Amino acid sequence: MFKNLWQSRAELVEKNLLAHLRKTPTLEPRLAQAMEYSLLSGGKRLRPILLMAAADAVNGSGEKFLTAASAIEMIHTYSLIHDDLPAMDNDDYRRGKLTNHKVFGEATAILAGDALLTLAFEVLTRQENISAEILLAVVREIGIAAGAAGMVGGQSIDLESENKQIDMATLKKMHLGKTGALFKAAIRSGAILAGADAEKLNALTIYAENFGLAFQITDDILDVIGDEKNLGKPIGSDAKNNKSTYVTLTSLDTAKNLANDAVKLAVDALKNFGGEAEFLRELVKYLVGRNK
Amino acid sequence: MFKNLWQSRAELVEKNLLAHLRKTPTLEPRLAQAMEYSLLSGGKRLRPILLMAAADAVNGSGEKFLTAASAIEMIHTYSLIHDDLPAMDNDDYRRGKLTNHKVFGEATAILAGDALLTLAFEVLTRQENISAEILLAVVREIGIAAGAAGMVGGQSIDLESENKQIDMATLKKMHLGKTGALFKAAIRSGAILAGADAEKLNALTIYAENFGLAFQITDDILDVIGDEKNLGKPIGSDAKNNKSTYVTLTSLDTAKNLANDAVKLAVDALKNFGGEAEFLRELVKYLVGRNK
Repeated sequence: MFKNLWQSRAELVEKNLLAHLRKTPTLEPRLAQAMEYSLLSGGKRLRPILLMAAADAVNGSGEKFLTAASAIEMIHTYSLIHDDLPAMDNDDYRRGKLTNHKVFGEATAILAGDALLTLAFEVLTRQENISAEILLAVVREIGIAAGAAGMVGGQSIDLESENKQIDMATLKKMHLGKTGALFKAAIRSGAILAGADAEKLNALTIYAENFGLAFQITDDILDVIGDEKNLGKPIGSDAKNNKSTYVTLTSLDTAKNLANDAVKLAVDALKNFGGEAEFLRELVKYLVGRNK
Repeated sequence: MFKNLWQSRAELVEKNLLAHLRKTPTLEPRLAQAMEYSLLSGGKRLRPILLMAAADAVNGSGEKFLTAASAIEMIHTYSLIHDDLPAMDNDDYRRGKLTNHKVFGEATAILAGDALLTLAFEVLTRQENISAEILLAVVREIGIAAGAAGMVGGQSIDLESENKQIDMATLKKMHLGKTGALFKAAIRSGAILAGADAEKLNALTIYAENFGLAFQITDDILDVIGDEKNLGKPIGSDAKNNKSTYVTLTSLDTAKNLANDAVKLAVDALKNFGGEAEFLRELVKYLVGRNK
């Protein structure tokens, strides 16, 4: 049931992403190909799933906000394209496929990322079933989360921390930006779009913060004890690159405990929700136990 | 009078840009420095000036829309940072100063561009004195103009045209995207924000299209007959790089005639406006006669 809903919604998102690409009169075919290549190369579609699940938790309206959900996936995809660039993480593979710049070249990869980020904001304005005031608030929420105070800021901390020991405070700030901010924006946007009151929005925000933390700690754990075949990427890369992680700054056991604590806090935050938030509860428990 | 207004408004824009940067809690100081470096490194501030001048032409409300004007300058600035990257035009200098990546490194330059583009959309949502419906329409207008169907698309055509002869149709499409789209969005956004009726919006759109054309042809002419000291960059770079331009595809005289025709059409488009559009008339005439 939980996995089926995830799967069927991920398919809805993919259809919607493709529909938006097809509607965009891209001036240059190679740019359009590069955008489509990364946007439709799989992935868990976690951020759009979270946006819809948060709207569901408020009033079951998740699928009404497929457009906003797709927009946030475009932002995530652009960030992966730019993070993989030679000047950044210099990765040749992503989810077992060649990275965007390996296929299309660096210049086109930069532009494809730029175009997807821009398209995300355009697409956001096309979300129906919602007042302009609320939609504008969501554009702002996502803008703040994706920019210098959030995702891009976190990536910048990551850059500046290369080959350096960092402390726990810096590690947390980096992840709050790099991955946490967009998770939180996805969940809060879903809640805001669904018209959540202050109490529900606050509860979902606490869920989101702990979800992001559990997700990141689990990522760090999997880089130590994960299975390369399941993960689709080599393990041990954090240690190899001398990266500070939740595991290196504490221990494997402590990291596991921290992840479990975060899951508990995430689930607790939803205590005043009923079955309509069950997906969110299952999702955070599932992610901390995942093997990829 | 005309130059004074331009100058004083450019200063207003610069103050507003800095205020928005200061309000953005950037997670990483080096990223903040890189954003500020390019955003406040001078320039004609043409796009924000155009946005405000279009609002003036409608009802004298130009300075009410300083926030939206600043947002469009952030988009222009991000595009310069990314265009200058080694993978793109590989430029070491811009307006006589080192380019962003020469000072901060490629990775930070990419992120600074990403952060400025994202900040632009956030800042747009903060424009006051306007209904949410209209503001959302402006976010969409600027999103379309800045993305794959506009500015990024035009840059992609430019990339694909490197060391290639292109025809006049491709040249026009490239410039419509690369520079024309954002000029047009600036002018149309100013008009829409000021509440222009369909007739005025249409007239200003025609002005904008011819403004963009006149601007680009003049750029191509200056690359042949300009003065390096005034321009602040070497001339002859188009010929050296085998670039097709309005001059190479026609002749210097024909290009000058095309630019003058465009100025005439731009001015004609404003015939039903009075003195409130005088700035726009003077601006297009000035730009085609400029020497930098």
